[in-house]
Amino acid sequence: MKPIVAITIGDFNGIGPEIALKAAVDKRVRQIAHPLLVGPQSIFEYTAQKLSIAKNLVFTSVDRQLPARMSANSIPVVDIPGYSERDIRPGKITAQAGKCAGEAIERAVGLCLNELAHGMVTAPISKEAFHKAGYQYDGHTEFIAALTHVANPLMIFLSPDLRIALVTIHRPLRDVPFSITQPHLTRVAQLFAKSLQSDFGIIKPRIAMLGLNPHAGEHGEIGNEEETIILPTIALLRRKGINVAGPFPADAFFGAKLYKEADGVLAMYHDQGLIPLKLLYFHQAVNFTAGLPIVRTSPDHGTAFDIAGEGTADPTSMIAAVTAAVEIIRIRHG
Amino acid sequence: MKPIVAITIGDFNGIGPEIALKAAVDKRVRQIAHPLLVGPQSIFEYTAQKLSIAKNLVFTSVDRQLPARMSANSIPVVDIPGYSERDIRPGKITAQAGKCAGEAIERAVGLCLNELAHGMVTAPISKEAFHKAGYQYDGHTEFIAALTHVANPLMIFLSPDLRIALVTIHRPLRDVPFSITQPHLTRVAQLFAKSLQSDFGIIKPRIAMLGLNPHAGEHGEIGNEEETIILPTIALLRRKGINVAGPFPADAFFGAKLYKEADGVLAMYHDQGLIPLKLLYFHQAVNFTAGLPIVRTSPDHGTAFDIAGEGTADPTSMIAAVTAAVEIIRIRHG
Repeated sequence: MKPIVAITIGDFNGIGPEIALKAAVDKRVRQIAHPLLVGPQSIFEYTAQKLSIAKNLVFTSVDRQLPARMSANSIPVVDIPGYSERDIRPGKITAQAGKCAGEAIERAVGLCLNELAHGMVTAPISKEAFHKAGYQYDGHTEFIAALTHVANPLMIFLSPDLRIALVTIHRPLRDVPFSITQPHLTRVAQLFAKSLQSDFGIIKPRIAMLGLNPHAGEHGEIGNEEETIILPTIALLRRKGINVAGPFPADAFFGAKLYKEADGVLAMYHDQGLIPLKLLYFHQAVNFTAGLPIVRTSPDHGTAFDIAGEGTADPTSMIAAVTAAVEIIRIRHG
Repeated sequence: MKPIVAITIGDFNGIGPEIALKAAVDKRVRQIAHPLLVGPQSIFEYTAQKLSIAKNLVFTSVDRQLPARMSANSIPVVDIPGYSERDIRPGKITAQAGKCAGEAIERAVGLCLNELAHGMVTAPISKEAFHKAGYQYDGHTEFIAALTHVANPLMIFLSPDLRIALVTIHRPLRDVPFSITQPHLTRVAQLFAKSLQSDFGIIKPRIAMLGLNPHAGEHGEIGNEEETIILPTIALLRRKGINVAGPFPADAFFGAKLYKEADGVLAMYHDQGLIPLKLLYFHQAVNFTAGLPIVRTSPDHGTAFDIAGEGTADPTSMIAAVTAAVEIIRIRHG
């Protein structure tokens, strides 16, 4: 049985519709999953035709579930009504695109919660457009967490040999040290360990925790968070049976490629985790939201407004996101 | 004329004497420079024999300048008296090793200031041993700056295609945002531009400045230092004729390999600059201290206490440091 994976349209002024379509028609994707597009059918049809994505593609509107039989060149769509290709403003931030993106996310989450889809992959949205449409969330992660009533989801980035989670995400650097508390760090590490077990099938995951300060504080010589917070948290986690090592000086950790010996790396802040990830796997990594009742992945890049509507968008990361979602679905379903 | 390059012993309980010697006898080094060892001659002799570094090596004690004629297997040493091989405690932190390291640095700086050497390369020291010996400085950079009466030197890391300078170095992360002020940033960028011109021969250097916050603050959505400090500083620098671009979101900057299009990258803090540098060029990069009246480089790694005295230390970065020093000396001397 191939799982049904909902793919949301993202911001239709960006590359969202293009890479959603490219992923949905990709042969490798169709071998392992039933892709289900979520967004205005008219915009998907227009995009497929304008950018010549797969010939003779037939869009089949579905409501609550997939039809029993689908032909090879047929793609099911859960339509979001009220939008058409005339609303597209390539590269612009519009409230309408933000609203449509939000509605597609809500719909896809509903499909997953009602078990009409096994998981969802989200095409990129614009935070500014999202805000302009009246949504108060900072992005997919926060919005989907709210829709699924989860207080503290965890962002994990997946790549061929680096799986990295962030203790703090979109926080000003000034606030980062104050966000690194023992309860927060404990919760994040526990959630990470649990996800590595239940979503990635690693029985006894090895987690490497990075330091906050240069040289991981050098025994308190350069900042004291390692001594006062991180080391005690690691000791606590180890007593709870979680295999955590660290804190590692981040530069030497990546320099010596120690991440290859860990099942998961826990970075203290955004750039500490995403500089090495993007240097190693730019536009090839996948973002997975752990801690949700549903499976949700996304590509590691943004709306790419600068190349919107040109047909040149690379769906590699989007396809990797579908593949990762399928793997996680399979492991969760045992 | 080959320049005379003083090479200090570093901490003799670490790999300092070993890599200093290995660099000094390296064929490529001897083709481009006259290496001049600075440290206890007895320890260099002991190390050469014990680790079988070059056969029949003759150490020639020199005082103020090189002898007129040197044979191929002869190496000049400026002796630091009062230490012998019996003082070596491999892998240990001792006040004596810290004191010897400090004396060698002072001597090498003196040789450079008195134009008895054209530049110096420093083998790694232990900050703890250095402190134990009574030195109040945090490392080479601060100590050499004091010896040469320079208030604000600039640490620049050199590698084949990434030249990166740090706005803040060994600061706790908590203090970093408060250290990013317009006067400091302006001074650092000006010094960087000047060094790129006078030390690297780049007539109109292109400097890329990274953001402090995730996504470089996303127009003030995630922290405001980009809006209030970094952007106005860039505008000011451009009015002064310095070609600075940014602030770039650090993760995407390295992901898209934009550093290949810059002559210099200015990172706001230690790990932001050194994670990508070490991921790309671990133990191959060179540390150069810009803004000094003398030329000083060093390898990008530490004392490696764990492999001290084993003979397995890799001199690649040390040799690269000598090569870089020679290039800078040649450019400075026109």
